[in-house]
Amino acid sequence: MMTLADIGEDALIERLIALVPTGVEGAQPGDDCAVVDTGNERLQLLKTDALVEGVHFLKEADPQAVGWKAIARVVSDFAAMGGVGETFLVTIALPSSMPLAWIEDFYRGMGRCLERYHAVLVGGETCRVPEGSAAVISIAAVGSVQREHLTLRSGGKPGDELWVTGKLGGSISGKHLSFSPRVEEARWIAENIRVTAMMDLSDGLAKDLPRLAKASGCAFFLDVNAVPISEGCTLEQALADGEDFELLFSVEAGADPTEWNTRFPDLELSKIGKLVSIGHGQQLDGGWDHFA
Amino acid sequence: MMTLADIGEDALIERLIALVPTGVEGAQPGDDCAVVDTGNERLQLLKTDALVEGVHFLKEADPQAVGWKAIARVVSDFAAMGGVGETFLVTIALPSSMPLAWIEDFYRGMGRCLERYHAVLVGGETCRVPEGSAAVISIAAVGSVQREHLTLRSGGKPGDELWVTGKLGGSISGKHLSFSPRVEEARWIAENIRVTAMMDLSDGLAKDLPRLAKASGCAFFLDVNAVPISEGCTLEQALADGEDFELLFSVEAGADPTEWNTRFPDLELSKIGKLVSIGHGQQLDGGWDHFA
Repeated sequence: MMTLADIGEDALIERLIALVPTGVEGAQPGDDCAVVDTGNERLQLLKTDALVEGVHFLKEADPQAVGWKAIARVVSDFAAMGGVGETFLVTIALPSSMPLAWIEDFYRGMGRCLERYHAVLVGGETCRVPEGSAAVISIAAVGSVQREHLTLRSGGKPGDELWVTGKLGGSISGKHLSFSPRVEEARWIAENIRVTAMMDLSDGLAKDLPRLAKASGCAFFLDVNAVPISEGCTLEQALADGEDFELLFSVEAGADPTEWNTRFPDLELSKIGKLVSIGHGQQLDGGWDHFA
Repeated sequence: MMTLADIGEDALIERLIALVPTGVEGAQPGDDCAVVDTGNERLQLLKTDALVEGVHFLKEADPQAVGWKAIARVVSDFAAMGGVGETFLVTIALPSSMPLAWIEDFYRGMGRCLERYHAVLVGGETCRVPEGSAAVISIAAVGSVQREHLTLRSGGKPGDELWVTGKLGGSISGKHLSFSPRVEEARWIAENIRVTAMMDLSDGLAKDLPRLAKASGCAFFLDVNAVPISEGCTLEQALADGEDFELLFSVEAGADPTEWNTRFPDLELSKIGKLVSIGHGQQLDGGWDHFA
């Protein structure tokens, strides 16, 4: 009998979306957010994301940091589309034995992140999981983007250059719980350079770069010597650790973002390769698969 | 140390929403859906809801029925506000050993319900829970309601009569997996009678009626002889079983919905009591508390 471990996350999603009605004009399954054209000036963005105890955070983790992370992951997805998150919902499935103080601190952490990024929590659901089961936290959120700033994964073309913000790898040592989503940076990119495709790096460059290339109908060439590596990490970790929450984007060749350093002096920007025609690229192994 | 089992669901939510920014004009924490006034002709409705294996469905349950239920519960919440659900997102947290056939049938069940109620799935997230943990399914959805048809829990006044659709109790014998949300019925109520407050019955009349009364700043009088009881059930079961997914609503006294029988000949409508001033009502015990 075939299980989820056999098929892998991306193939699973492709099979599943064929089984349900998905026909909203403008929606792009598989991107960082779903896009819905409601006929208003701005496009609507929708996102859902989950954190599982023992997978995305440990029982011993600071609950305020887990709350920050729960919101920040979703804020990062909106940023990667060129947009902003506005109204958030939270579902928390917890054992009854969970200390009240834990969940209150989790909410405080969510609250700090919501305030920092000018968003609000408008609803939620609390429910019980059987004792011994992992706690599951699911965030859903509605956001929006100016039509001309919408940046999909699918807009890249052969010849476009690939860029990445910050340094990659080693997130598990702490950054995965305390990172700042690249909201201002993503807006600057969407407004100032001829960006053709963008996503945030949540599962590692080795997993996410092939996704961006595939969505754009391209292959890719990665200059491994140009990959910005976090201090103390190996190239393999930079490619495969995941949860970097940096931005990966493609720009038209020659669109060198020289003003970046003036605007964001503390954040490195690295040109790491380019998109190429299918059949002329590399293979990358590794990265994080949710069911592997 | 105080745990979630000690505090109970309603008190928990009150404590938690004080810890996060919730300031969207028009949002009503604690109602069936959150209401957001985006400045458009229709008000936006937002909802999140979860199903936990071993709590809301058994491992042996037909996955197509579980998928139907996951969507139908949320459709029912939109109906209870006088509105409709439009775009849905699903988060599924499953062990890697879950058979692919299970999740595909779950999606087929969701798909049937989405089609039946003219809604679409625009996004989702799949993630892994540790082996042995309960599967958790979380649905989030965006809907809308015509401004003049918005029906909150909080609009009831002393003297309003209380009505309920259908029969209550015994849902566990099957209806909880296969019920039809009262969408057409709720729209008829919102459009045709002077309804002052409405909600759907998910946790049992004994739990939900006090919630509606409290939200409306009222107490209540329940005529237990008038409670419509499902065949083979006791009054206690009708009050406490939960998952009836019928509509509970209050109407101005004398607004007798006589045309109901013509429009919905197969669905009973029962007058079960009235809202009264605080200090002049009853106490009801029972119903479903998620952490008790």
